[in-house]
Amino acid sequence: MKLAANRTDEFYMRCALELAANGRECSPNPRVGCVIARGGGIIGRGWHKKCGGPHAEVEALRDAGGDIEGADVYVTLEPCSHYGRTPPCADMLAERRPKRVIAALTDPNPKVAGRGLKKLRNAGIEVETGVLEEECRWMNRGFLRRMALGRPWVTLKVAASLDGMVALPNGESRWITGAEARKRTHGMRAENDALLTGVGTVVADDPRMTVRDAPGRSPVRALLDRTLRTPPTAKILDGGAVIFTLADASQERGEALESAGASIVRVASGEDFLPEVLKELCGRGVNYLMVEAGPAVASSFIKEKLCDELALFIAPKIIGNGKSFAGLAEFAKIEDAPRVKDVKYTKCGDDLLIRGVFECSPDL
Amino acid sequence: MKLAANRTDEFYMRCALELAANGRECSPNPRVGCVIARGGGIIGRGWHKKCGGPHAEVEALRDAGGDIEGADVYVTLEPCSHYGRTPPCADMLAERRPKRVIAALTDPNPKVAGRGLKKLRNAGIEVETGVLEEECRWMNRGFLRRMALGRPWVTLKVAASLDGMVALPNGESRWITGAEARKRTHGMRAENDALLTGVGTVVADDPRMTVRDAPGRSPVRALLDRTLRTPPTAKILDGGAVIFTLADASQERGEALESAGASIVRVASGEDFLPEVLKELCGRGVNYLMVEAGPAVASSFIKEKLCDELALFIAPKIIGNGKSFAGLAEFAKIEDAPRVKDVKYTKCGDDLLIRGVFECSPDL
Repeated sequence: MKLAANRTDEFYMRCALELAANGRECSPNPRVGCVIARGGGIIGRGWHKKCGGPHAEVEALRDAGGDIEGADVYVTLEPCSHYGRTPPCADMLAERRPKRVIAALTDPNPKVAGRGLKKLRNAGIEVETGVLEEECRWMNRGFLRRMALGRPWVTLKVAASLDGMVALPNGESRWITGAEARKRTHGMRAENDALLTGVGTVVADDPRMTVRDAPGRSPVRALLDRTLRTPPTAKILDGGAVIFTLADASQERGEALESAGASIVRVASGEDFLPEVLKELCGRGVNYLMVEAGPAVASSFIKEKLCDELALFIAPKIIGNGKSFAGLAEFAKIEDAPRVKDVKYTKCGDDLLIRGVFECSPDL
Repeated sequence: MKLAANRTDEFYMRCALELAANGRECSPNPRVGCVIARGGGIIGRGWHKKCGGPHAEVEALRDAGGDIEGADVYVTLEPCSHYGRTPPCADMLAERRPKRVIAALTDPNPKVAGRGLKKLRNAGIEVETGVLEEECRWMNRGFLRRMALGRPWVTLKVAASLDGMVALPNGESRWITGAEARKRTHGMRAENDALLTGVGTVVADDPRMTVRDAPGRSPVRALLDRTLRTPPTAKILDGGAVIFTLADASQERGEALESAGASIVRVASGEDFLPEVLKELCGRGVNYLMVEAGPAVASSFIKEKLCDELALFIAPKIIGNGKSFAGLAEFAKIEDAPRVKDVKYTKCGDDLLIRGVFECSPDL
């Protein structure tokens, strides 16, 4: 069966997307996959595995044995045009004389921003863009968010009861959801570059916030602690954590926490605390941040419209009077209540996982 | 294809069950369906349409043209043995000489309680029970609940946000869920014999609590109002409503409300208010009750373990600080939080409908 040209392009681009999805540990770089096709079949595949390693195009070229003359090169992001840790892919491709280069989207990185495609066009190679663009944008939502807004893609993760409670009035909160949800949470942690919690959670629950019940590396641990009341014995410090605090927080406590393994980052403005923290995390190459925190931090993120995605595990129980996960956010009218769109429901053991995108999350 | 005997029995009993499901307005009687089979096919079908009308067996016999000699009679509940509004079905069947009568379950009504099956056995007719018993019990959960415990099957219906909120702190609560959920709610109302709310909801929202956006009759409206502060102009009184109040509530207000269309029922004990109300409703032939109320009434039902089923609509929004649907129920430990089992999730427009059975609901 011969597919129409755009269907063929979509087919190969989807293959490239699937390869890109393997690049879970390539932050701060984008996830990029590349498929090289010639004569009705794939002759090379590659993806960007990790920052500092070869780009997807180089991997695919290598896989193809070096000869890609007259071929179609499908790549989920515009080939780079600048010397970074590796030489520019656009130059490399231009030399190898493929017939066409099909890029899902142009690179928003100001160092590239269309220059890669221009180089290829100038070399007489056909260039197309926009194939599966939406899917490719979604796959690189963290990278795009960082490039466009200087903050990571923020997922708010919550484990609550049917009535939205995360703890009893006395603070008791373990365990609301079951083992499957915990496992899924660890898997979600591994998909993020950093995890963020508040000092309240550290004091109440002393979590480790590592990836244990799922494959993958543990992300950077980040902690909001305006007054540095984190105990130096907190488990989250074991293996290192970044503590964000205010400029005037105690030097002495800061030193004690540094001795315990923490990096202390002092944020100038108390008013813009969260946006400043997100900017700092961005500067450290964090494309994807998952917030796993108590009502104080979660409510602030919701109220300040800094969440992009919600991952809400709901346990089939009713806690009644307790602490609601967003209970410290207040809205004047029901129409002002933040909405979540593109909602997906998944059973997760006895619990339900609701995922969706906050309507206040800016377009990608 | 010849089915094994028990598979054949299950097949015909499932047909009888499906017929029984048509009997939505037969309360306080149970929902009963009957299928008469002979020679490998169905020769008669019937179901109990409404209280006072012919029983399912009579309808099926009529449908079969009167001759059921040597046939198998499948009925979802033991045929009656007593003269009620109609003569006993067991006698009628015994006269017509079927080969077998297969009843899903024995009738828990103390007026029957096995006597119908005994009559049939004594007349030399083969009798079997237990085919699809669980399904038939579920279909008649209201009737069985009333027979066993003297209270209706209680469904707690809630429309909340993702964080379990039903109103803002100022009480604003309309509309949290969307048009589809409202339509589904009206359909659920029509499946119940009575709807119950609290005076707080009447004062705040002035609901009509009728079936408008779905087919079916409007159930009895019942209202909890310990001090008779319902305004005589309340919409819920239009067409009649039962107001449950305390023995010492104002006579004068009672009379005003009676003039406005209400029946006033004075419950002796303030301590056992809810159980007494359920008993009263039971006495009025209510097998199925749906509670649609604010946090005060909902919390009491949850706390007192009087709910059998939960129907929770969740809108994809976060209300933050507000009134939680169960916020006035308090539990000392998370293990004490009431759990819901056999949970089913259904999309309902933009909202999600979560249905399940409370673990504290006694076995049927």
